[in-house]
Amino acid sequence: MLTEHEAMARALELAATPGVPLGPNPRVGCVLLADDGTVVAEGHHRGAGTAHAEADALAEAGAAARGTTAVVTLEPCNHTGRTGPCARALVEAGVRRVVFAQSDPNPVATGGTRTLRDAGIEVEHGLMADRARALNRAWVFGVEHGRPLVTWKFAASLDGRSAAADGTSRWISNSAARADVHRLRAGCDVVLVGAETAVVDDPRLTARGPDDAPLAHQPLRAVLGERELPPTLRLFDGSAEVAQLRTRDPRAALAELFELGRRHVFLEGGPTVAAAFLRAGLVDEIVAYVAPVLLGAGRAAAGDLGITGIGAALRPVVTDVTVIAGGDGEEPNVRFTLTPA
Amino acid sequence: MLTEHEAMARALELAATPGVPLGPNPRVGCVLLADDGTVVAEGHHRGAGTAHAEADALAEAGAAARGTTAVVTLEPCNHTGRTGPCARALVEAGVRRVVFAQSDPNPVATGGTRTLRDAGIEVEHGLMADRARALNRAWVFGVEHGRPLVTWKFAASLDGRSAAADGTSRWISNSAARADVHRLRAGCDVVLVGAETAVVDDPRLTARGPDDAPLAHQPLRAVLGERELPPTLRLFDGSAEVAQLRTRDPRAALAELFELGRRHVFLEGGPTVAAAFLRAGLVDEIVAYVAPVLLGAGRAAAGDLGITGIGAALRPVVTDVTVIAGGDGEEPNVRFTLTPA
Repeated sequence: MLTEHEAMARALELAATPGVPLGPNPRVGCVLLADDGTVVAEGHHRGAGTAHAEADALAEAGAAARGTTAVVTLEPCNHTGRTGPCARALVEAGVRRVVFAQSDPNPVATGGTRTLRDAGIEVEHGLMADRARALNRAWVFGVEHGRPLVTWKFAASLDGRSAAADGTSRWISNSAARADVHRLRAGCDVVLVGAETAVVDDPRLTARGPDDAPLAHQPLRAVLGERELPPTLRLFDGSAEVAQLRTRDPRAALAELFELGRRHVFLEGGPTVAAAFLRAGLVDEIVAYVAPVLLGAGRAAAGDLGITGIGAALRPVVTDVTVIAGGDGEEPNVRFTLTPA
Repeated sequence: MLTEHEAMARALELAATPGVPLGPNPRVGCVLLADDGTVVAEGHHRGAGTAHAEADALAEAGAAARGTTAVVTLEPCNHTGRTGPCARALVEAGVRRVVFAQSDPNPVATGGTRTLRDAGIEVEHGLMADRARALNRAWVFGVEHGRPLVTWKFAASLDGRSAAADGTSRWISNSAARADVHRLRAGCDVVLVGAETAVVDDPRLTARGPDDAPLAHQPLRAVLGERELPPTLRLFDGSAEVAQLRTRDPRAALAELFELGRRHVFLEGGPTVAAAFLRAGLVDEIVAYVAPVLLGAGRAAAGDLGITGIGAALRPVVTDVTVIAGGDGEEPNVRFTLTPA
């Protein structure tokens, strides 16, 4: 027996089911509730080309869907794509009432509420909408901006270096900060670096756990630039997809990734690539790890931004500052999460 | 009516009386307690050449000192300098018992406990010793190392710049962080910069409050290097002492400041001077302010430290990390306090 609020919490949980691929579709969950609060069926979306959450739940419920309340994390769509419109399916199944969290920002899918109301179904919306929007942040961004959301991540010493003079950089951050990076990577669908970084640092760019085992979701490893990549790079170890974007233009690279159905880019540098995105106004979030290390020389965290005077400094807004305690023998690091002003 | 513990807290308060000059003498407070806990007299040291705390309290008490317990923040000295030995004075005044916090680390002053015990006085020590040592941190350091304690302070952008490409740097930190710097300056007896910084940035280097009014204590403003300083610099505004140390050698500069009776140097850069002190192993504490600002170019926070690989990075130990909230329209900064490993 669940209240509608509890059912929405459950629908959000279903929407966020691990293993559901990220990408061009939103994450959606649905719970069908009987009048007495009994759960009649549950459903969630499993990625492009598969049933929407409502259809998934309706299929499980069969005739028992009649007279239920559908609790859905996103406004039921009104659009016939690879699957039929959910608003129509709910009407046909005889659902009595629909409660959804987030309104559909997608201009081609919207209108579900009207279809439902026209059929005499009671519709309420906004319940836990913030949580639903947060879950599909990158998807909503893509609908609104027509390009992937870009999170620029960097780790630097206290004096702003992301590598020593000889290029070595393992490790500046403590192990907990590095684990945090892997967790964030796994929440994105692209990890993007410049060809220079790919060749010089030879990173794997996979999302791994503390035991070095791969996490459930591996983003696409994308390399920006036309430089030929030696096939011996660790990028080509076969542990996750790789793509080379043969352009140096951030906008073109993002358009290509959007075409590939990618919605959230985790930009991991180096400084020249990061500076190109910053200068183009194509960084939407910054996650910066500062470690209490001094190098005095070496690769700067950010390349030339064309800023000459302090008045032109970039002053992003801080959304979070967290001290990340280190493990044995490690010092605490600080993580800033920022939104460009 | 005070317990001995309460009396020690009061003695520490007396020792830290605002306006007592820092410098070559320790800050000491003393409370004389009657058997029933009544405060018979209080005293504190007011700087080189003036009465020690015990003598100050004994003078106030007169004959009433007989039979009291002297609660003192530092072991009574046994040394005849510009004033007579305190241990002897306590014996002669007929004090019954002495409780002190910190043992005297000064080889020429130690032995007070023996003198007191030989005269049949009950002596106990260690009560609130940590607080007493913290109060005289720079003085103890000077006794032990024969040079002033050096605190290196810097403020940098997230990408490690302490000024923009054109040299402008007002402001990178938020106003609360800048107020914190003034408070720390006022707790030191020297503010040290390189001649380059003195000329290019033209700083005042005074310790000022939020209303720009000078704080009670102004450290000596010292400039390192042989470069001629234009008399029009704001340093020469007469608002606090100024000294030019005509050397580029950190060790020689510190020796000169120690000779001048200075015990705590607040090193404010620039990067070349800071790097010289770091390379010489002459930085004892680092206070770093990190602001969520990006510059992409400009003066680095630290100059060349001779570090080529990440294995040689300086990894100071973090003693504190504090988020410093900004004022209206300002972003939070982070202050790291560190001890070189």
